[in-house]
Amino acid sequence: MKTYGFGIDIGGTTIKCGLFDSDGSLLDKWEIKTRTMEKGKHILFDIADTIKTKMAEKSLSKEQIQGVGIGVPGPVNELGEVLCAVNLFWENVQIEKELEALLDLPIKAGNDANVAALGEMWKGGGVGYQNLVMVTLGTGIGGGVIYNGKIVTGSNGSGGEIGHFHVEDNLDVDCNCGNRGCLEQVASATGITKLAKDILEAENVVSCMQKKDDISAKDVFDGVKAGDQIAMKVADKFGEYLGKALANIAVVVDPEVFVIGGGVSKAGSILLDYIEKYYNSYIFRGCQNTKFSLAKLGNDAGIYGAVKLIMSEKNV
Amino acid sequence: MKTYGFGIDIGGTTIKCGLFDSDGSLLDKWEIKTRTMEKGKHILFDIADTIKTKMAEKSLSKEQIQGVGIGVPGPVNELGEVLCAVNLFWENVQIEKELEALLDLPIKAGNDANVAALGEMWKGGGVGYQNLVMVTLGTGIGGGVIYNGKIVTGSNGSGGEIGHFHVEDNLDVDCNCGNRGCLEQVASATGITKLAKDILEAENVVSCMQKKDDISAKDVFDGVKAGDQIAMKVADKFGEYLGKALANIAVVVDPEVFVIGGGVSKAGSILLDYIEKYYNSYIFRGCQNTKFSLAKLGNDAGIYGAVKLIMSEKNV
Repeated sequence: MKTYGFGIDIGGTTIKCGLFDSDGSLLDKWEIKTRTMEKGKHILFDIADTIKTKMAEKSLSKEQIQGVGIGVPGPVNELGEVLCAVNLFWENVQIEKELEALLDLPIKAGNDANVAALGEMWKGGGVGYQNLVMVTLGTGIGGGVIYNGKIVTGSNGSGGEIGHFHVEDNLDVDCNCGNRGCLEQVASATGITKLAKDILEAENVVSCMQKKDDISAKDVFDGVKAGDQIAMKVADKFGEYLGKALANIAVVVDPEVFVIGGGVSKAGSILLDYIEKYYNSYIFRGCQNTKFSLAKLGNDAGIYGAVKLIMSEKNV
Repeated sequence: MKTYGFGIDIGGTTIKCGLFDSDGSLLDKWEIKTRTMEKGKHILFDIADTIKTKMAEKSLSKEQIQGVGIGVPGPVNELGEVLCAVNLFWENVQIEKELEALLDLPIKAGNDANVAALGEMWKGGGVGYQNLVMVTLGTGIGGGVIYNGKIVTGSNGSGGEIGHFHVEDNLDVDCNCGNRGCLEQVASATGITKLAKDILEAENVVSCMQKKDDISAKDVFDGVKAGDQIAMKVADKFGEYLGKALANIAVVVDPEVFVIGGGVSKAGSILLDYIEKYYNSYIFRGCQNTKFSLAKLGNDAGIYGAVKLIMSEKNV
């Protein structure tokens, strides 16, 4: 009678928690603070505590719980180990083993962007597909590759790290990863802001964006909707970078669908128009019918994907 | 007592055939002609005939045969169908179903480049690895992605079509695929010849390659070994295109090893030096220890991979 599971999404400031039934219905959702002091050594204890408290509150026994899935902001290897998660100040944390010892429940961990992709496949913008690539356009760019319903973790936990796909030879600043020219530098929310500033500077044309002190990706796509020529130019350049990169990703893993999420995706379907324009102009004809969709689960993608990790492994 | 299998590699002019035992030892190897007339309708009959003849010759019963694996020069979908294989003049051939009807043996088909990758993983340059990307540098560029020991076929059979990875915005001719700027146009044997001609034309320096009427990829790497500056420049450009593309492929599927095969790979380890130079300068740090190796099976990679298709599905 294992009919419940927990999905946990560890972020740098909060830990999102969800209690699900085995159909994937979210029964309860809450957050706790991420205590990163002392190299994040409290985090797993805090997770164990909040799960135990919730089980007591709902009168759930261990026998009713399939397990706990965890999304981590860093690479997780096949052994369930996190060698480094900068935002949590973690080094060499055997997350599955340690949490299993605390909870006596099956534990499965994955990288947060990969796990979000799994969540979108299960209950979001990728429902009905087993092969998908998710791109999360936030402050940075996260990515996740799902093949035959399973996360492509990769041999170093770097599968789906498409924010660090090289797309531009002519940048004058480094990416946070230490390289220069990463997709994340030109197509994330931060990247779009940079593109907008550069294009505004280079063009001597009036734009509604000039009134802003600090142009956001939202300002750009609001400008596009309002017919602002400069905003359209920025969106076009963004679409070229991302569409071309996705065309190249398509000839590697040939997904059924690309799911676009993260804060930037709130711009809606207009975003997909710019991406698909360039995808279509670069794509190998064998992949020309690949679908594009917007993510649907927002910040909950992580907890959905996390619980799916444990459900797909065990009883579903 | 199923202890044998057949591996078949269908090419545009010959069909390579191998009889293997279940350990993967090649017991016998032969070729038949590919009869492409009448839309290639004789091909499956010819394959069935040659297998029946070999079984009779070796006194093998159906009960001793695990099955027949087939590599096809075109995309094969998950249902074992070939929608189009240009070199065979095939359209909509249900290869697995039709050959199963002819032989009453289990049949499994895959794309030839993918199948060669599987062969190299099993018995060639990728032995000991489960996650690899193979690049076949011939007249064109073939590719295969293996993840957790299985071919990443992709949703349209275009997984691993990395010859059509877009790498160059400034070409003046189209690729055979109809796009422009594909990896195949600049890093295949044909592409290397084109690079060499362009660089020779642009540079006013003496090179041993000027004596050649038609410069081959072999001439270029022979030149490199002889210390020819122009040849080194060509090899460097080749390495930049391929190394950068492989660095981008690495952040998608994060393989343990890249296996480089095809005619161009006969140049030996010097080829890997040029590829790794640029791979290392573009790669995301999480994938910086990925290995490179040369393919070992030559033209037999296809028959090894083909028989592995059926063996991995059934009894091995």
